[in-house]
Amino acid sequence: MTLSRQLADLVMQTPEIDNKDVINAAKRGVIDFFAASLHAINEKETMKIKQWIIDEGGTPKAWLLGHKTKATAAQAALLNGFQAHLLDYDDVHADVRGHPSAVILSALFASIDLTSADKIYGRRFLTAYVIGIEIMARLGQALNPSHYIRGWHSTATLGGIAAVAAICYLHRYDFLRQAFALAATQAAGLRVIFGTPIKPLHAGLAAQTAIRSIALLQNGLTADCDFLDPQKGFIAVYGEKGSELLLDNWGSEWKINNPGLWFKSYSYCSAAAYVADAANLLFKQHQFELQQIERIDLIFSPQGDSALIYPRPKFNRQGRFSAEYIAVKSLLGEPLDFTVFDDEPVSPHITALIEKCKRSYYEEKQSQRFAAVKVRLKNDEFFQQRIEHPQGSPKNPYSDQALYHKLAEAVKDETLAHQLFEDIYDFPDHEIKTFINKYLIRL
Amino acid sequence: MTLSRQLADLVMQTPEIDNKDVINAAKRGVIDFFAASLHAINEKETMKIKQWIIDEGGTPKAWLLGHKTKATAAQAALLNGFQAHLLDYDDVHADVRGHPSAVILSALFASIDLTSADKIYGRRFLTAYVIGIEIMARLGQALNPSHYIRGWHSTATLGGIAAVAAICYLHRYDFLRQAFALAATQAAGLRVIFGTPIKPLHAGLAAQTAIRSIALLQNGLTADCDFLDPQKGFIAVYGEKGSELLLDNWGSEWKINNPGLWFKSYSYCSAAAYVADAANLLFKQHQFELQQIERIDLIFSPQGDSALIYPRPKFNRQGRFSAEYIAVKSLLGEPLDFTVFDDEPVSPHITALIEKCKRSYYEEKQSQRFAAVKVRLKNDEFFQQRIEHPQGSPKNPYSDQALYHKLAEAVKDETLAHQLFEDIYDFPDHEIKTFINKYLIRL
Repeated sequence: MTLSRQLADLVMQTPEIDNKDVINAAKRGVIDFFAASLHAINEKETMKIKQWIIDEGGTPKAWLLGHKTKATAAQAALLNGFQAHLLDYDDVHADVRGHPSAVILSALFASIDLTSADKIYGRRFLTAYVIGIEIMARLGQALNPSHYIRGWHSTATLGGIAAVAAICYLHRYDFLRQAFALAATQAAGLRVIFGTPIKPLHAGLAAQTAIRSIALLQNGLTADCDFLDPQKGFIAVYGEKGSELLLDNWGSEWKINNPGLWFKSYSYCSAAAYVADAANLLFKQHQFELQQIERIDLIFSPQGDSALIYPRPKFNRQGRFSAEYIAVKSLLGEPLDFTVFDDEPVSPHITALIEKCKRSYYEEKQSQRFAAVKVRLKNDEFFQQRIEHPQGSPKNPYSDQALYHKLAEAVKDETLAHQLFEDIYDFPDHEIKTFINKYLIRL
Repeated sequence: MTLSRQLADLVMQTPEIDNKDVINAAKRGVIDFFAASLHAINEKETMKIKQWIIDEGGTPKAWLLGHKTKATAAQAALLNGFQAHLLDYDDVHADVRGHPSAVILSALFASIDLTSADKIYGRRFLTAYVIGIEIMARLGQALNPSHYIRGWHSTATLGGIAAVAAICYLHRYDFLRQAFALAATQAAGLRVIFGTPIKPLHAGLAAQTAIRSIALLQNGLTADCDFLDPQKGFIAVYGEKGSELLLDNWGSEWKINNPGLWFKSYSYCSAAAYVADAANLLFKQHQFELQQIERIDLIFSPQGDSALIYPRPKFNRQGRFSAEYIAVKSLLGEPLDFTVFDDEPVSPHITALIEKCKRSYYEEKQSQRFAAVKVRLKNDEFFQQRIEHPQGSPKNPYSDQALYHKLAEAVKDETLAHQLFEDIYDFPDHEIKTFINKYLIRL
């Protein structure tokens, strides 16, 4: 039996999950997804995609989350995935080296045909989501770090494959092995495009790939092939290692819970959160003046900065992927809110300090991921902070209350936010279309 | 100035082509594209995609070639590309190591908004097509053979990038550099899926990627990045070599003419055409009986068989990519027409002879691509034929009359085929929408 058939069987035979911790982790993921998405619905980039969807037309069946309207499933997947990841405010998973929920939940919601009468229950939905994360994280482990380092954007390359698993599970489709192959042969996304709106588009495209793959199979097209073929399959082409661990201990624990999702309260790359937290501590303790600073060292565990492709950013939007930009702004106590990352050139005083930054690497015995910021002043004093677990990362998680706060800020209406929060917590025993129809015109 | 900006500038500044040989090569490409496409419009696989398009709906703007109707540009690109490549009856280009016209012409036709009043002339259209082939072939040279050998399907991975160049040139869009980046970050397609309907779907997906990239940029999304970045760009990630030759001697001669397109009169992979022609000669000379044959050697220049991934095909549809299947059927004088490559198991008498086939490789001084078939009989006699230039390949081309015959067979109506042939030959001075509207309800 081929590896891909075994994997498809494992997925499809997974019982709906009862474990409270796992279900709780999934609920938190859904809440964070809503917060990240709703925060981005009125962004001008979101409006451009929406305008395209309106121009294109089509039979409306799926929820355009936050837009009080429906669109085709493929369109909904694209827009929902795009807006969920637009502000880089959505969750991250260490094994994925990317953003799983923007793709998987966008695809899952888009897969629900609001014109059909089928009932879909929340526990199955949450289990489908857990499975999607699982596939994405296991593929990430099989491919990384070489895949990511070569230049691939794992959110994009792994997201579609993970999302077809989630969709097939949710709707009990019997063609997952073929859906894997069809999604794998469309897997794409380059990191060179980070710092443009195409990075968030990757999440939408991956979700759309999943929807399109499922639709084509539903219409009778076939994709009878082993996408994990050892010579020419997905992992052989996109990676270096083998796929031995893909099947091991399926269901004994779940990646959504261990190592767990990383939630964000900021709109820059999570790889920069280490230096942000370190620099923040230094700012709180010292409040440096710009003129005092002689040199700033940014020290990473090996490859800890590979997502941070702009050591010398020219535009603020590139600052999302610049350790130097984030560290310097944090050191000076300047805001790093959503409005910062615009298309304007980086201010000269920030650029001047960025020029004083130097990256270096240090491998610790435990291969613990960390970053440190070391500031040397002109009077030869120096100060250092080191961070292993930035705020929001799995070992330093946000409370439910902080998550609620993130949601309420995005929803803007306290009563509605509270209701949405409660309804997501009640997910397991409720019907999803009832939920969607309740919020379709209210969010 | 980045490499991608230079390439985009070269494309956009290309004068419309006057050279008769080049324009003639482009016309022949268009005729072959119509023949391959129209041959496939009633296939059951085509109908499945068409049904999906009908279900999905949308504002009809672009020509669904051969279906007497319009669809959205993205849908038209998908269906047109799919049907053009469905029977593996469409053209091939050695530098591409794949099928350029199915992608480029499908995308070009889909890019023409039939609801707009803009006039588009045939010479610009043919020049756009020549440019598309040029980009695809130059990218192919930069990446291959390692790209193809690793497991990529060049038709899919290079097609979208080539097609955005053609579309931007045709419509004089000023964002080609960004379109390159947007298409490159969606480039995908694995050879492991050969022998399923997803191989032809790759051509449709690549054309659709081009259309979607253009539409997103038209709606104001930006993709400001160098897709040829030496570290993390397209060629660095998808290949091994550099991109030095991409810009050299632009416009001094054109790849569509030298080495030229390879047209097919059969529905299997062109890599198998060498053994087909050799085995055909052997059949004509000897008419072997099945029982006489002791052993069949298939001898290739190095990597000459890498597209032929089924040494032991189980189903007839896999025979399209099996040197053994094609050689054995040809040796026995059995038909290899469109109806052969179905989902049925390979007949036992063919399988028995396939078991006697052995592939080997021989590198000649000139690195001339070739294949030879050597049949050894049980009485120890042996017979051999060697082919360097199969029928239809650039150095052994079909006559215009043969191309007309291919078109007429697909159109099924002599008068209409004749008119279409003439109108394509008159392309350079005619308006394209007038042409499309003439054939929209007639083909």
